[in-house]
Amino acid sequence: MLKTVTIENETIRSFKRNWKKCIGTGRLGLALQKEYLEHLETIQKSIQFDYIRGHGLLSDDVGIYREMEINGEKKPFYNFTYIDRIFDAFLDLGLRPFVEFGFMPKLLASGDQTIFYWEGNVTPPNDYQKWANLIKACVSHFIDRYGIEEVLEWPFEVWNEPNLVNFWKDANKEEYFKLYHITTEAIKEIHPDLQVGGPAICGGSDEWIVDFLNFCKNESVPVDFVSRHAYTSKPPTKITTEYYYQELVDNTDMLEQFRSVREMIDQSPFPELPFHITEYNTSYSPINPVHDTTLNAAYLARILSEAGDYVDSFSYWTFSDVFEELDVPKSQFHGGFGLIALNHIPKPTFHLFAFFNHLGERVLYRDEQAIVTQRKDGSIVLIAWNLVMEKGDDFNTEVEFSIPVPSSVLFLKRQTIDENHANPWKVWQQLGRPRFPDKQTIHTLQQTSIPFVRTSREQTVDGTLTVSITLTKNEVTLIEIQPINDESDSYHGLDDRLITSY
Amino acid sequence: MLKTVTIENETIRSFKRNWKKCIGTGRLGLALQKEYLEHLETIQKSIQFDYIRGHGLLSDDVGIYREMEINGEKKPFYNFTYIDRIFDAFLDLGLRPFVEFGFMPKLLASGDQTIFYWEGNVTPPNDYQKWANLIKACVSHFIDRYGIEEVLEWPFEVWNEPNLVNFWKDANKEEYFKLYHITTEAIKEIHPDLQVGGPAICGGSDEWIVDFLNFCKNESVPVDFVSRHAYTSKPPTKITTEYYYQELVDNTDMLEQFRSVREMIDQSPFPELPFHITEYNTSYSPINPVHDTTLNAAYLARILSEAGDYVDSFSYWTFSDVFEELDVPKSQFHGGFGLIALNHIPKPTFHLFAFFNHLGERVLYRDEQAIVTQRKDGSIVLIAWNLVMEKGDDFNTEVEFSIPVPSSVLFLKRQTIDENHANPWKVWQQLGRPRFPDKQTIHTLQQTSIPFVRTSREQTVDGTLTVSITLTKNEVTLIEIQPINDESDSYHGLDDRLITSY
Amino acid sequence: MLKTVTIENETIRSFKRNWKKCIGTGRLGLALQKEYLEHLETIQKSIQFDYIRGHGLLSDDVGIYREMEINGEKKPFYNFTYIDRIFDAFLDLGLRPFVEFGFMPKLLASGDQTIFYWEGNVTPPNDYQKWANLIKACVSHFIDRYGIEEVLEWPFEVWNEPNLVNFWKDANKEEYFKLYHITTEAIKEIHPDLQVGGPAICGGSDEWIVDFLNFCKNESVPVDFVSRHAYTSKPPTKITTEYYYQELVDNTDMLEQFRSVREMIDQSPFPELPFHITEYNTSYSPINPVHDTTLNAAYLARILSEAGDYVDSFSYWTFSDVFEELDVPKSQFHGGFGLIALNHIPKPTFHLFAFFNHLGERVLYRDEQAIVTQRKDGSIVLIAWNLVMEKGDDFNTEVEFSIPVPSSVLFLKRQTIDENHANPWKVWQQLGRPRFPDKQTIHTLQQTSIPFVRTSREQTVDGTLTVSITLTKNEVTLIEIQPINDESDSYHGLDDRLITSY
Amino acid sequence: MLKTVTIENETIRSFKRNWKKCIGTGRLGLALQKEYLEHLETIQKSIQFDYIRGHGLLSDDVGIYREMEINGEKKPFYNFTYIDRIFDAFLDLGLRPFVEFGFMPKLLASGDQTIFYWEGNVTPPNDYQKWANLIKACVSHFIDRYGIEEVLEWPFEVWNEPNLVNFWKDANKEEYFKLYHITTEAIKEIHPDLQVGGPAICGGSDEWIVDFLNFCKNESVPVDFVSRHAYTSKPPTKITTEYYYQELVDNTDMLEQFRSVREMIDQSPFPELPFHITEYNTSYSPINPVHDTTLNAAYLARILSEAGDYVDSFSYWTFSDVFEELDVPKSQFHGGFGLIALNHIPKPTFHLFAFFNHLGERVLYRDEQAIVTQRKDGSIVLIAWNLVMEKGDDFNTEVEFSIPVPSSVLFLKRQTIDENHANPWKVWQQLGRPRFPDKQTIHTLQQTSIPFVRTSREQTVDGTLTVSITLTKNEVTLIEIQPINDESDSYHGLDDRLITSY
Repeated sequence: MLKTVTIENETIRSFKRNWKKCIGTGRLGLALQKEYLEHLETIQKSIQFDYIRGHGLLSDDVGIYREMEINGEKKPFYNFTYIDRIFDAFLDLGLRPFVEFGFMPKLLASGDQTIFYWEGNVTPPNDYQKWANLIKACVSHFIDRYGIEEVLEWPFEVWNEPNLVNFWKDANKEEYFKLYHITTEAIKEIHPDLQVGGPAICGGSDEWIVDFLNFCKNESVPVDFVSRHAYTSKPPTKITTEYYYQELVDNTDMLEQFRSVREMIDQSPFPELPFHITEYNTSYSPINPVHDTTLNAAYLARILSEAGDYVDSFSYWTFSDVFEELDVPKSQFHGGFGLIALNHIPKPTFHLFAFFNHLGERVLYRDEQAIVTQRKDGSIVLIAWNLVMEKGDDFNTEVEFSIPVPSSVLFLKRQTIDENHANPWKVWQQLGRPRFPDKQTIHTLQQTSIPFVRTSREQTVDGTLTVSITLTKNEVTLIEIQPINDESDSYHGLDDRLITSY
Repeated sequence: MLKTVTIENETIRSFKRNWKKCIGTGRLGLALQKEYLEHLETIQKSIQFDYIRGHGLLSDDVGIYREMEINGEKKPFYNFTYIDRIFDAFLDLGLRPFVEFGFMPKLLASGDQTIFYWEGNVTPPNDYQKWANLIKACVSHFIDRYGIEEVLEWPFEVWNEPNLVNFWKDANKEEYFKLYHITTEAIKEIHPDLQVGGPAICGGSDEWIVDFLNFCKNESVPVDFVSRHAYTSKPPTKITTEYYYQELVDNTDMLEQFRSVREMIDQSPFPELPFHITEYNTSYSPINPVHDTTLNAAYLARILSEAGDYVDSFSYWTFSDVFEELDVPKSQFHGGFGLIALNHIPKPTFHLFAFFNHLGERVLYRDEQAIVTQRKDGSIVLIAWNLVMEKGDDFNTEVEFSIPVPSSVLFLKRQTIDENHANPWKVWQQLGRPRFPDKQTIHTLQQTSIPFVRTSREQTVDGTLTVSITLTKNEVTLIEIQPINDESDSYHGLDDRLITSY
Repeated sequence: MLKTVTIENETIRSFKRNWKKCIGTGRLGLALQKEYLEHLETIQKSIQFDYIRGHGLLSDDVGIYREMEINGEKKPFYNFTYIDRIFDAFLDLGLRPFVEFGFMPKLLASGDQTIFYWEGNVTPPNDYQKWANLIKACVSHFIDRYGIEEVLEWPFEVWNEPNLVNFWKDANKEEYFKLYHITTEAIKEIHPDLQVGGPAICGGSDEWIVDFLNFCKNESVPVDFVSRHAYTSKPPTKITTEYYYQELVDNTDMLEQFRSVREMIDQSPFPELPFHITEYNTSYSPINPVHDTTLNAAYLARILSEAGDYVDSFSYWTFSDVFEELDVPKSQFHGGFGLIALNHIPKPTFHLFAFFNHLGERVLYRDEQAIVTQRKDGSIVLIAWNLVMEKGDDFNTEVEFSIPVPSSVLFLKRQTIDENHANPWKVWQQLGRPRFPDKQTIHTLQQTSIPFVRTSREQTVDGTLTVSITLTKNEVTLIEIQPINDESDSYHGLDDRLITSY
Repeated sequence: MLKTVTIENETIRSFKRNWKKCIGTGRLGLALQKEYLEHLETIQKSIQFDYIRGHGLLSDDVGIYREMEINGEKKPFYNFTYIDRIFDAFLDLGLRPFVEFGFMPKLLASGDQTIFYWEGNVTPPNDYQKWANLIKACVSHFIDRYGIEEVLEWPFEVWNEPNLVNFWKDANKEEYFKLYHITTEAIKEIHPDLQVGGPAICGGSDEWIVDFLNFCKNESVPVDFVSRHAYTSKPPTKITTEYYYQELVDNTDMLEQFRSVREMIDQSPFPELPFHITEYNTSYSPINPVHDTTLNAAYLARILSEAGDYVDSFSYWTFSDVFEELDVPKSQFHGGFGLIALNHIPKPTFHLFAFFNHLGERVLYRDEQAIVTQRKDGSIVLIAWNLVMEKGDDFNTEVEFSIPVPSSVLFLKRQTIDENHANPWKVWQQLGRPRFPDKQTIHTLQQTSIPFVRTSREQTVDGTLTVSITLTKNEVTLIEIQPINDESDSYHGLDDRLITSY
C-alpha cells in the first residue's frame, strides 16, 4: 500500500499544547514514594505536562481529615504533613495540581461503601457543614503555603465519576449537585476567582452535563469548567484476577465523544466554558495488557494529533504503573495504565508523548495517519503511524511525503517504535515473563525500551524533499528534518579515502 | 561466506583481565578538567580499568618542581597542589596511577628541546642530584598521602620512549640508563619494594630492551618490570595541519611484536619480569581519523582477545579526546586517540572495550574472528567481529556457532556496532561535519552512539544451540545467551490473543 | 563541680561496634517513601549501621500474601514487588535486613485484632501449614534474589513482643512457642544454617526467655539467638491525642536489664547464644517529646558506651520520624522516635550516634560520664556528657582530663550538642511551633541542628595534655585530639603581623 | 562603646543589586577545570551574580586564534572548542560573560612582552586587520551559538589596564585608543547595538578617562560604558616569593574614587554613560593574606552597602583561589583573591556577599557600620559590622537598634562571622598551616567555615523592637527578624514541664 502526501508550505493551524496540559496519577498518597517520583521526573524531563490529577486527596492515607477529642468533644483536626510533601514535589517538577476533591474521609462518611484496593469511601458527607469546613481549610492552607497567585491557577474539580454507582453512592445526581453546590460555595468564599468545575463524569451518561449546567444556571451556582472522562474499550471478553481483556472500538469514537459534548456545552447556558477531559485511555482497566503494547501508542496517536481541536485539555490516565487500584502490581508487566512500567521501563505510549513533544508550532498537514509541522527554526517535524487493529503480521504501509523546503541539503533523523523496537513488553515475554526481575533483567528491559534511530542525508529536487517511509504494523515514527550547513570544505586536507577500508 | 564453529563445553583457557589492567591518558594536567573527568567516570562505569598512565607528571603545568630564592640562594620547592587533586580523582574512580616519571621541569632541564603543543622538555636533568631529590620528594609525598600499602601497588616507569630523538635528547641510551639508575636508586631508598621499570621504548629498537636488562644485571640496578609501546600503522600517506593519514599493517603484527619481546625477556637475565605495553593503538597520530572508525574497533578486537597471552598489561592510548599533544582539538571529530570523543560521545572502540567487559572467566573457543566464553553463572557470552581492511561494501560474513548448553530454552541478546550503528562519526559526516556542534546536535550524536540491540528466544536441539549470524563489514557483535526460567504458566488467565491485533 | 580524670596510656578494652549493629525502622512499607530513604541515606553516611529491623514485613500493605481464586479454589499468591524494592534499597545503603516475621496477613489471620494506625493483625494463623508455606516462599525468594551467602547473614526473628496482649492475642505463650516452632522448621528446611531466634519480648516478663529456651531444649527446636526489647520510662503522667508524657528511670536500669538477661541466658541450656536487643529507647511512645530533646542524647550516651559489654547488638528504635504507629505525624516535632525529624532535621540523639562513630578502637578510660579512646592513627577521641534529670539551669560540670600523648603540639576539635546548640526542637519552639513549616523555616531548623564546633591548639606539659572542659546541662561533647606537624617554617617570609590589624 | 540607632519605618532608598552585577574570575582557561566550576556553582547558589569577567579570552591556552599553512600561505583559523565549553558553563550557571578582549594571541603579537605566570602577551597586534577579523569572528560565533538577543546583553570591554606598562606595552595611550577604535568598529559592524566600552584602567591615572571620552567624542567612536578598577592597599611593606604584605587605606577612599570618576563622566561629553568597576578588592596582589581574613569582609561591608550609589556595577576580583597569575597556588591558604579557597573552603568575604544577598529591597537605615532593610514580606534584615584596622583584641562595640515593627512577637536569627567563627584561615593556622591538606583536614576546615547561628524570640515594647548586640573585632553579622504566628495553643495537651528535666 503506497500513500502519497503532498504538503504545501502553509500553516493549516497552530498546534496547541492541549495534549500536554494534564496527566493522570494513581492515588495521591503514592506520590510519597521514591519510584513514583522518579518516574514523574522522567516524564517531566521528556514531556513537561502542566498539571497532574489523581484521586484520593481526602482519603485517609493522605490523612488530612482527623478528629481529636478535646474536653469530651470531637473537634476536626486538619493534618497537612503529607499533602504538603506531595504538592511541594509536584510543583518542584513543574506540575500544578488539578485538584480533585474526593474521596470521603472515613470520619465524615455517611456510609461504608468503598472503591478500590485502597478503599476510597464513596458516600456523601455525614455533615455537609464539616465537609465545607474541610474544603475551606484545605484551600486556605494551599494559599498560605503557595500564595494566591499560584492557587488561582489550580482548577478544583468536585468528586470523580458520580454517575457511576461504584464511585458515588447510588450515582445520586441530586446528591452530587448538592455536594457540588456546597463545595463551590466553600471555595468561592475563600476567593471568588478560584476555579471550580464538574461533573467529572465517566462517558455514557452525558445528560448529566446538560443537567449539571442547567442546575448551575437555575441555582446560580458558579461553574468555571466542565469535566468528563473517556475510554474506548468494549465490554470485557475475559476477566480473571490477573487480566481484564477487551477489544477496542475505533479511535474516532473518542474524537466524536469530545466533539459532541463540546457541542452540548456550546448550546448550554454557559457556552464559553472550558472543557477538560480529566481522564482518558483505551481501556479503563489497570490490568488490561493493551496498555503495555505498541498498539496502544499507534491507536492514541490520532487522539493526540486531533483532540485538542475539541477539548481544552485531555489527561492520559496515568503516567506510571506505580498504582494500586487493583492491589499492589503483581508483575513487571500487568496491563497497568502507566506510561512508565515498574522499574522505570518506558512503554511505547511514553514515546508517543515524547515524540509529540518534538512537534513544531505550525501544522502544515494532518490526516488520520500523520501530522506534519514546522518549528520556529524552520525545521520540519512529522509523526506518522500505522494503526492496525487486525491480527497478523502483513500490514506494512508505504508513505511518500513531498515537502517544500528552501535548503537543498538536509539531515533527517527518524525515530521508530514498533513491535520490534522500544517494545520491552515483547522482550519480557522472550525472557519468560519474570514477575520480579533482577537488576540484570531490568537493565535489558531498559536497553530495549529506546526508540530505534536512523539518520540520513537528503537532497531536495526542485525545492521539494521526498521522504519515503515504510511503516510496520503499529509503528509510530518521528521524523525531524533540518537544513545542513556543510563545513566539510573548511577541513584542511580532508580525504576520507586515505583511511584504510574507506 | 559461511563459517561453522563447533564449540566443546570445555575451558581452553581462563580469560585474563590483562586487557583492562591499564588505560592511557593525555597529559596529567588535563585531569583537572571537568570534561576529562566526566569521560573517565563513564569509562570506569563501563569498563573498570585498574591503572591509568600518561605523560607530564613533572611538566611545568602540573607545577610540582619550582625553586624559591631564599637569602640569595635558589632552593627547590615541591608543589603538590595539583597532583594531589589529580591522583585523588583517579583513586576515587578506582584507578591507580601507573606513574611515568617525565618530562623535565624547565628549571631542571639541561636544554630547551621540547615536544608537543604543551612543550614537554625532553632533555636530561642539569643536576642529577636535584632530580633524585625531586623523585624522592614525590614518592615520599605519595606515601604520606595515600599510605605505603597503596603506593606499593603503583608501578614507577622511568621516562617515555627514550629511543626516539623527539622524546629524549639524541635518543642517548647511556644517558637514559643513567637516568634510570639514579631514579631507581632514589625510589628504592624510600622503600625497597616499590616497583620500578623501563625502558618504555617505542617499538622498532627492541635491542634497547636487551641492552637495558643487561645494564641492570651488570650494574646491579633493580628492575621490576619491562615496558614498551606498540602501534601498527605504516608511514604516512598524507600530512596536513588537520590530518595524518596512514594505512595499517595486519593486526597479527602487533601480537607478533608482543610475543617476540616476551621471548627476549625470557632469555634475558631477568626471565621472570612482568612485561607491560604501556601504550598501544593502531596509529600513533592524534589526528588520524582511523581512531574514530568502526574499523579501529574491528581491528583491535583480536588484540584484546589474544594479547593477554603475551603481556601482563597493554594500555590503550588513550581514553579521551580531551587531549592536547597537537594543540587544542579543532573539531568534534578530528582523529583523536580517545575512546570517547569531545562532548561525551563514545566511539566504536569504546564499545569494543565495554563488550569485552561482559565476557566470562572461561574461554570455550577462540579464533581470529571470535571469542566464546562462559560466565560463572553458566551463561554463554561471545564476541565476533568481521575485520575488513579493503574498500567497498560487499563484505558480509555468515558464521554459525554450535554451542552445547544444558537448558533447552534460552534468551539471546545481541549488541552490534558497525558502519550503521553506534557510529557517530558517520552521523557527524551526514550533519556536515560541524566543528563546534550545538547542544541539539550533540544530543543526536549521543543518541546514535549506542549499540544496536536485538533480542530473541532460542531453542536447543539435542543439547546444542545453533546461533547463525551475519556480520557486516567491520561489525563487532556481543552475544549473551542465558537460560530462561519461563514463568508464563503462573499468570492466571493469560491469553495474549485476547488483545486487539495480537 | 570539678572532676579530674587521669588517663593511662593503656587499653582497658577494645571498643566493640555492637552499638551500631542494628537500627530500628517504622513499618517496612514506609521504606518505599522518598523521605524515608533520604533520612536513611544520611544515617548511613554518618553512622553506618549493619542491620535494620522493623515490623510489618507480612502486613498487607507490603502485600506479600494474597490468594487467587483459580477454578473455584483459593490458591496462595506471593507478591514480592514491594519487598524486593525495599530490601534492594536497604542493601544498596549497606544495610542487611534483621528480618522480623510478622504481623499476620489478613487472609491468614484467625481473628481481627489489630495494632497501630496501620492495623497490624496480631492473631495466630488460621492455618499453620499456609503460614509455613508463606515463610518458605519468602526465604526461598530472598535466596533466589540475593544468594545464599548473603541470606545466611540475615537473622530471622519470630514475631514481636508476644508477651504483650496488644501484640499477640492473649499474649499466649504456648501459641507463640508453636508459631516459633513451625516458623523455625520452615526456615531450617530451606537451609539448616539460616539463623532463627526469639522471643522478641518486651521487658518485664523475662521468665518468657527462660521458658522459651527450655522449650527449645525440650522440644529440640533450633534457636540461634535470643532477642528482647528495653525501654526506661515510667508509667505515663499525662496522655492526650498528641502527647504521652512520662518520667524516665535511671539509665543504669537499662544496663542492669541487659546484664541480668545475659545472665539468664548464660545459665540456660544455650549459654553460648548471642543476645540481641532488637528495640530500645527511653520512652516506648512515639508521641513523647523526650525523643526530641538533648536530654535523650545525654541519657543514652552511657548506654552506647557500655551496653555492648552485655549484648551483641542493641537497636535504637527508630531512625526516622517517618513513622505511622499513631497516625500520620501531626507536626514537625511531635515526640517521634526518630534520630531524624520530618523534613530531614537531625535531632540531638542523631549526633550522639554520629559522635560515637568517631571513637577509636581502644578504650583508654571509661566512666559514667565519659569514654576516652585512641584511634589506630594515634589520635585521642573522647566523648563526655553531663546527664541532668532535674529541672533548672544551674548544672554546669567541669571536667579535667589528663592524657598522656607523645606529641607536644596538638590540634583539638570539640563538637557540642546541648540546649543551645544542635537543638532544633528549641528553635522550633521559638518559631511558635509551626506544624507544617515552609521551606525557609525548614532551612532555619537545618542550620540550627548542626553541632557547635570549637578548635584550638594545645601544648603538652611533661608528656601530658590537660583538657579542661565545662559541660552544660545535658551537653554531649566529642573531642578529637591529633598531633600537629607544623609546616609554618616552610613558608618563605611569613609574618602575620604585617597584615593590617593582626 | 555603645551606639544607639533609631530607625523610622520609612524607605530612605531602594537597595540596588549593583553589588552583585558582576564577579571576577581567573583566566578564562581555568573555567575548564572541575574545581573552578564547583566553586562557581556554590557562588551562584548563594549569591547569584549576573555577569562574570576575567582575562585571557584571546590568550593561547583558550586557543581561539591559530593559523594554518594552506598552499604556502598562513590563514587564520578560529578554534572555539574551549570557549564554547566555557561560556556554556557560565550560562548554565546563570552568568553572562562580561567580555574582556585580551590578551594578544602570540601569532598576532607585535612583541613578546608577557604578564603573569601564564604569559599573557600585552603587545599591540602586529596587524590590526587580522585583529579586527578575529574580533568579528568571535562576536559572530557567539551570536550563532547563543542568539543575538542574548549577546546584546553582553558588554564588550577592550583590553585590561592599558594605563599600566606591564599590561599594555609602554602604557601607550594613543595605541590603546587605536585598539579601542578598531575593536569597536569591528563589533558594531556585526550589530550596532552591541555594547562596547573601556578604558578598563587601573585607578591612579583617571585623566585617561577624560582623554578617552574626548577621543570618542572627537573621533566619533561609539562608547557604551566606562570601566575602571579600584584597589585600596598601600605600597608593599614586604615582598617574598610567597607573600606580598601591604597596609590598607581607609575604605572610604574607594567610595571617593567611585564618586569622583562618576563626576568626571557626568561632566564629559557622555554624561549618561554607565560606569562599571570591572575589578576591585582590598589588595591587588594574589598572595596578600588579607584576602583570607575576616578583616577583609568587615572592610568591604561598607563598600557593598554604599558603592552602588556611584557605580552601575562593581566586580569583586575574584570568586575563587583557583587562580594562576603568580603560579599554581602553593598552599591551602596563600592570600589568594578568592571568595572560596582551594578545596572548596568559603572565606569570610564569601559570607559577606551571602549575607548581603538576604537584604530586602527597601533601605530603612544606613550608616558606616550598618544597613537596615525590609523585605517585601515585611521582615527586617540588617547587617552590622565592626571594622577595626588596629592591632589588638579589645575592640568590642555595642549597638542598640530600635526598630518599629507591627507584630509583637518576633523570631530573630543572627549569623556571625568574626575571628572565632567562619574563620578557616585561623583554624588552618592552629593545624600548623598544612600546605596540601588531607581529606580529614579539609573536612575540619569546611566545618569551621560556617557562620555561627544564634536564634531567639523577641518581644516589642510599644511597637518597637530593641535589638542590642555586641560586635567583636571585625565581626560582620546578619540579623533577620520575622513575625511569629504562634501555633502552640493548637497542640492538644501540650505541657513541656512534664518532660524529665524541663
